Amino acid sequence: MDEKTVGMNFTVDDTIVAISTPHGTGGIAVIRVSGRDAEKVVGECWRGKDISAMKSHTAHLGKIVYSNGELLDEVVLTIFRAPNSFTGEDVAEISCHGSKWIQRELVNLLVLNGARPANPGEFTQRAFLNGRIDLAKAEGIADLISASSKAAQRLAMQQVGGAFSNRLNELRDRLIELASLLELELDFSEEDVEFADRGRLRALCGEIRAEMRKLADSYASGRVLKEGVPVVIAGAPNAGKSTLLNHMLGEDKAIVSDIPGTTRDTIEDSIEIDGILYRFIDTAGLRETEDVVERIGIERTEKRIGEASIILWLIDSTDPEFKERVREVEERESCLPGVCNIKVITKMDLTHGLTDVLKEVTGNGKEDREPGYVLISSKTGKGIGDLLQRMKEYIDGQLAGEDEIIVTNSRHFYELEQGLTALDRVENGLSAGESIVFITQDLREVLSRLGSITGSITTHDLLVSIFQKFCVGK
Amino acid sequence: MDEKTVGMNFTVDDTIVAISTPHGTGGIAVIRVSGRDAEKVVGECWRGKDISAMKSHTAHLGKIVYSNGELLDEVVLTIFRAPNSFTGEDVAEISCHGSKWIQRELVNLLVLNGARPANPGEFTQRAFLNGRIDLAKAEGIADLISASSKAAQRLAMQQVGGAFSNRLNELRDRLIELASLLELELDFSEEDVEFADRGRLRALCGEIRAEMRKLADSYASGRVLKEGVPVVIAGAPNAGKSTLLNHMLGEDKAIVSDIPGTTRDTIEDSIEIDGILYRFIDTAGLRETEDVVERIGIERTEKRIGEASIILWLIDSTDPEFKERVREVEERESCLPGVCNIKVITKMDLTHGLTDVLKEVTGNGKEDREPGYVLISSKTGKGIGDLLQRMKEYIDGQLAGEDEIIVTNSRHFYELEQGLTALDRVENGLSAGESIVFITQDLREVLSRLGSITGSITTHDLLVSIFQKFCVGK
Repeated sequence: MDEKTVGMNFTVDDTIVAISTPHGTGGIAVIRVSGRDAEKVVGECWRGKDISAMKSHTAHLGKIVYSNGELLDEVVLTIFRAPNSFTGEDVAEISCHGSKWIQRELVNLLVLNGARPANPGEFTQRAFLNGRIDLAKAEGIADLISASSKAAQRLAMQQVGGAFSNRLNELRDRLIELASLLELELDFSEEDVEFADRGRLRALCGEIRAEMRKLADSYASGRVLKEGVPVVIAGAPNAGKSTLLNHMLGEDKAIVSDIPGTTRDTIEDSIEIDGILYRFIDTAGLRETEDVVERIGIERTEKRIGEASIILWLIDSTDPEFKERVREVEERESCLPGVCNIKVITKMDLTHGLTDVLKEVTGNGKEDREPGYVLISSKTGKGIGDLLQRMKEYIDGQLAGEDEIIVTNSRHFYELEQGLTALDRVENGLSAGESIVFITQDLREVLSRLGSITGSITTHDLLVSIFQKFCVGK
Repeated sequence: MDEKTVGMNFTVDDTIVAISTPHGTGGIAVIRVSGRDAEKVVGECWRGKDISAMKSHTAHLGKIVYSNGELLDEVVLTIFRAPNSFTGEDVAEISCHGSKWIQRELVNLLVLNGARPANPGEFTQRAFLNGRIDLAKAEGIADLISASSKAAQRLAMQQVGGAFSNRLNELRDRLIELASLLELELDFSEEDVEFADRGRLRALCGEIRAEMRKLADSYASGRVLKEGVPVVIAGAPNAGKSTLLNHMLGEDKAIVSDIPGTTRDTIEDSIEIDGILYRFIDTAGLRETEDVVERIGIERTEKRIGEASIILWLIDSTDPEFKERVREVEERESCLPGVCNIKVITKMDLTHGLTDVLKEVTGNGKEDREPGYVLISSKTGKGIGDLLQRMKEYIDGQLAGEDEIIVTNSRHFYELEQGLTALDRVENGLSAGESIVFITQDLREVLSRLGSITGSITTHDLLVSIFQKFCVGK
């Protein structure tokens, strides 16, 4: 048993079975069997070419029969032999007709023949336990399956492809170099010698910290890209918030009326635009109100504004108190420096060109994009493209190059932050000339934090908590 | 072009693509590509072993990339080369990660590369057009996919396996023998000779008719087994109908109360018991009522009784007017001779053994199964097993041997009945010594009716109507 299985109690010596394709009825479905007895379990109910004579990675037409010889289905059986399979074990994939009844019956039959129904994520877990993939890649597979935009897919692929693990392993190598220099001293600590140049050690620490910091900081964008960029549509009642939301979503999600205060709930929906998933959040109009329900809505709006990445501040161009509205928005956005504030002047179809007031507010006579202002009409669609472009530029600005590694997983973020805290202690210790014993202890913690991301150091509980989030059949 | 493509306009010279697994998110999903350019279309976005160098029926790990080289997913590609594939064409099956986004993106990419999104059932349609399967088998595949009980699966498998088609082809061969004997006479009709022995011809006709009749008659059971055996639960108000339904379904589907007339809608649900799908239909209690809604419910009950295969007549053993209830039921069931009537005495947990009245009604002192009566308690579950056994015996009695061929498709039933009508004309013509010209015309119609079942004779409209009922991806 190698390092990573220490303290764990996962059995990989039985044979598991599950439906790997989505739940429901379809043309075909795939039942996956993995384990030492995969061929025996399938062989019991297989009528066709002798399975032991099949080459790995070959597909065969045949029949699945009950123990009394009765036909259940005609299927295609594909055999993947250990270690060249997804799990690293013998794997049999049965492509059957996609009736729910047949799928269930086939799984039951395989269970009767000795397979065990797989737990969620157990195939991927076995791939990890058998050393086919590391933990970060396994978590990437789960993210890939739930990816709902190009950005999310790209980030998950970075993990599955191993770019993230490679970066972590580079960091570990450098930390191990640091540790070995220090531990050499430790061995001779009685003699009070200093082998390593303290200045060089601190420089090395600093480089590693910068790398780890960059990864940890990328989590803010990573999380948002994976789950969808929260875009709050805010503004005074009747500023056209619901109309803009409906225009963005291409449907009548929110009830629109001329009555100010129509929207009380926060209405939310996601849509992928240009590869990025936006979570648009329509909010109750912000105003003083005596209506209890409306007031609860406004409180919720304030909460959503606090969680937003982008806030669209809508100002009705036909509002008699237009300048007052602009002043209110400018005041509010000055309190929210960390997010992307975009001031959107709405209902431009009703203003018949740029009024003097508008000119004054936006600074000049151009109707086009002005810094901080976008002029739109949700009715005619004018300006919406500009608005989307402005949002995309903000997101792109948050991300650097295409190849930059971005952390999307909260567990990884947590371990990086914990590692950084321990690294701080290492640096402080070095500066203060602390005992090597303490410094190497902290250094080991940094190593352990990074190791737990890829799974080179792990625990039973950690694996349980990771794989229980998977779907069954993966 | 052979016989079967005459008059049709189905293109099979392009390449089609669809998601073949059920809609939704899962561990994996399978995208199927079929057609002349299948390998080219997939090759455009495939990074891995050269596809042209792959052997048929082999699976390969590789990558799917966008035209700019960006990675979409890591997949397993399985190649099936014409004619040894499901459709008879070159087929590529891509097993990708089961994210809905990836599935959609992959299909889009393959469409960009020259594939066309497949119509419903188009893969099966191509299998038919390319002579891989006949029409009855194609329809069997659709039935197999929607099979929701063992009985339905077995019947569909009979069609897919070809047993039904073989029987039809035997019948056709014998009809063709008959036709050739008659047509020989036709060639020499000027000479007024009779080659064929009229007696032998009539005997042959009779044998064929008996076979066709048997097939057509099997449709009544076939339809019921495929769609579920309709079991109506009828009886006076408060006889325990809803309680029995809930017991059968193992859930609280129907609202149960002590108030007679609680159930007004007919409540229906299906459950597979011992391989057979039963559609239990709970009904409004039958009684004279002034309540308009309840009266509508009772009218519906009468309608459902008319459609039932099995009627469970519930009689409350604690009913003060028990004997009157029994008399009513006996009167009603005598008007319904074609169905399986089972008289069910309910609430046996409350009667504390068999009362004199019960003894009198059921004819003797045994609490067990008596002809026509089953004594149950839905509360304790006593007698329910007997009831199910009684129902199963009835169904089994409707079906003869396991190998008997049963027609389940309304189209097949229609064609058989039409063929039988034409065959009647043939027999009458032979008896009446009619002109061979008319007789052979009728005989050709019988042949054509049987041929349209297997699809050896077919039309564009027929194929459209058959395949549009399929799901996309099959």
